[in-house]
Amino acid sequence: MKIILIGASGTIGGHLYKTLSEKHDVVRASRKGDDVAVDITSSASIEEMYESVSSVDAVICAAGPAKFGPFSELSEDDFYIGIRGKMMGQINLVRIGQQYLNDAGSFTLTTGILAEEPVVGSTALALVNGAVNSFALAAAQELPRSMRVNVVCPTVVEASVDDYADVFPGYQVASMDRVANAYIRCLQGKITGRIIRVY
Amino acid sequence: MKIILIGASGTIGGHLYKTLSEKHDVVRASRKGDDVAVDITSSASIEEMYESVSSVDAVICAAGPAKFGPFSELSEDDFYIGIRGKMMGQINLVRIGQQYLNDAGSFTLTTGILAEEPVVGSTALALVNGAVNSFALAAAQELPRSMRVNVVCPTVVEASVDDYADVFPGYQVASMDRVANAYIRCLQGKITGRIIRVY
Repeated sequence: MKIILIGASGTIGGHLYKTLSEKHDVVRASRKGDDVAVDITSSASIEEMYESVSSVDAVICAAGPAKFGPFSELSEDDFYIGIRGKMMGQINLVRIGQQYLNDAGSFTLTTGILAEEPVVGSTALALVNGAVNSFALAAAQELPRSMRVNVVCPTVVEASVDDYADVFPGYQVASMDRVANAYIRCLQGKITGRIIRVY
Repeated sequence: MKIILIGASGTIGGHLYKTLSEKHDVVRASRKGDDVAVDITSSASIEEMYESVSSVDAVICAAGPAKFGPFSELSEDDFYIGIRGKMMGQINLVRIGQQYLNDAGSFTLTTGILAEEPVVGSTALALVNGAVNSFALAAAQELPRSMRVNVVCPTVVEASVDDYADVFPGYQVASMDRVANAYIRCLQGKITGRIIRVY
């Protein structure tokens, strides 16, 4: 399968790249342009990415900025970091990509446990995660040419627990392999409109 | 209780006004300014509303634009109608209002069944509803001075079923009284961080 992986330099994306590239042709997309350049906060940049990579079977997005911080201190602009980034970035990957992917192509997006079990400081992230979860349920009913869309929604992952342990007090941690398996189910299975919780 | 009701001219808001004004001091806020003018797509307008109505115990929002339409035809701007309207409009009512409401004041927001059970044509609405549901869970943990925030999340309501029956095939319809009761639970109870589904 030919896969565009967005966020291959991140914690989850890096692990996915290692796992998926054994079996698949994985094109790494990032702002700095590992294999192809993309800034998912820009529709024009997403369009250019799809124009430059042909015959794509799957898109996996494990990237997207959003702002963490106390609700009393977040400005409207702080909310829009996540809205333009992790939220509309991922929506636009599907909205624009539906015209480009091969028949039966799949989109796998990333949200997180904060959609349902938010921590203190996560209002702007919870918002984005909840939005993308609901979007995937809706979009799955409308994608043309047997395309699919799913979401992987993990808890804190093993590889970042040292950085985030204080932010997620008492949250169970998911192993990187368990998280990678959720993406593989979305990629190689035939499911659509599913939120795969890895809690 | 002194309540600001946004969207009092709408289907749900109109019923709420009739029900709540028997017992409470209800200030109707709308773009055309029934009692006070507000355009919830503008933070500045929300700020002005709070400046002009003093000593508020509760805010109920039963308003907020969003765009319905086939996913293949929705532009990025179409998504932003709901993002600036029903989504950030409601978030900003809480974000700004936390500085203005009386101690133990409450915010009751409105989403809908499309967050979890979307219909065809509802990608941009599902997104907004899912976002606000998750936001409320998160914000409830951070509001100061014992303030509360909840969401009423109804299915199609009785009074609009004639207009929407074809859009929601087979969806159960909620009576206006059942929906109004959900708002009353949020308003007069002590719950916070709850999504009251009226399905």
